Amino acid sequence: MSSTPIPTITAFERSPDGGQGLARDTRVRWALEEVGQPYAVRLVSFAAMKQPAHRALHPFGQIPTYEDGDLVLFESGAIVLHLAERHAGLLPDDANARARAIAWMFAALSTVEPPILELVNARLLENDKPWNKERLPIVKDRVRDRLRELAARLGEADWLDGVFSAGDLLMVSVLLRLRRSGLLDEFPSLAAYVARGEARPAYQRAFAAQLAVARGTPPAGA
Amino acid sequence: MSSTPIPTITAFERSPDGGQGLARDTRVRWALEEVGQPYAVRLVSFAAMKQPAHRALHPFGQIPTYEDGDLVLFESGAIVLHLAERHAGLLPDDANARARAIAWMFAALSTVEPPILELVNARLLENDKPWNKERLPIVKDRVRDRLRELAARLGEADWLDGVFSAGDLLMVSVLLRLRRSGLLDEFPSLAAYVARGEARPAYQRAFAAQLAVARGTPPAGA
Repeated sequence: MSSTPIPTITAFERSPDGGQGLARDTRVRWALEEVGQPYAVRLVSFAAMKQPAHRALHPFGQIPTYEDGDLVLFESGAIVLHLAERHAGLLPDDANARARAIAWMFAALSTVEPPILELVNARLLENDKPWNKERLPIVKDRVRDRLRELAARLGEADWLDGVFSAGDLLMVSVLLRLRRSGLLDEFPSLAAYVARGEARPAYQRAFAAQLAVARGTPPAGA
Repeated sequence: MSSTPIPTITAFERSPDGGQGLARDTRVRWALEEVGQPYAVRLVSFAAMKQPAHRALHPFGQIPTYEDGDLVLFESGAIVLHLAERHAGLLPDDANARARAIAWMFAALSTVEPPILELVNARLLENDKPWNKERLPIVKDRVRDRLRELAARLGEADWLDGVFSAGDLLMVSVLLRLRRSGLLDEFPSLAAYVARGEARPAYQRAFAAQLAVARGTPPAGA
């Protein structure tokens, strides 16, 4: 009801995870909350996601998308970076520290998440296959390799490179997908890192907002 | 031999692909060539990549890395973006077009490349497994889904969003990994898109430079 236009994101009408916060709109909601940017949400059904109107916004027929005036974006990483570049709170001011924070964004999405997606695919798409029981340990070991390296770099620090950044936001979001697998518990420092992310008030608000959709009680105006 | 310090990247001493240009240093070399930035290369053995000295630069023990004065970066996507932000030639001037080009960078690395990595892993790491013959078609179909969507968006255009950008550079680089699979040939417009990327003089120079390493004939100073 604001007189200033606010950006609109898309999210699942019915998230496959039932409100666990694993759908990628949560990452964008979290970034919006961190920078204090109000937003609107348009819910999209699975059927509508594959239709031309939505594909015009997202070529791969997924969520989230981001619309702000003439600008239409897809890819949660790109949306988070866009917000981080335009608002304070998600990237350091120092140019080198900023570049390193962006490197962690890419590391989350293109080094740590791919083996996790393999594990998710093995569970979701190949669960009925005769090979899955023997193959799962191999896929898990690939995830463990990454987690071991990530834990070694994190060490005893709170965040990956100094203060909390968009790199941590995406890394925590990616690691959250592992909770049900138990793999995160094998690396206590990473479990604690994820818990620090979840404890942030901005994450709490983002999580509550997506959960309200799953429960059919989204707040008015969102 | 320049008196001005130039950035240094790392690359495989012996690339697993024998000089086909699929190692990720090629993406960074290509970006450096597009923007006309001279660079030095330090070759790293597989053993050295896993040692603390290299892990201090790259937490996941991989290549490429990028060193420029006090700045150390890893993740090819982050390095390409860093170069694109500091030099003309890889991102449009218009703010919205720039944000969309960055979205394509993320799309290449976090939407299109993961299923391709699954296919690469199936071939490289699971080739001796009893399930691989039956599983490969499933993995290939996941790649085809993405290619179909990408081809639909590209349409008859030369590049993904207006002029050539860092988004195209990464997308072409990701698609190149599919050449041996034959999947690219199933989508002639994407095969032509990749060929347009390869035809760029900057790509040609980058490819030649990495091939020279594989052949043991790197130019002096690189």
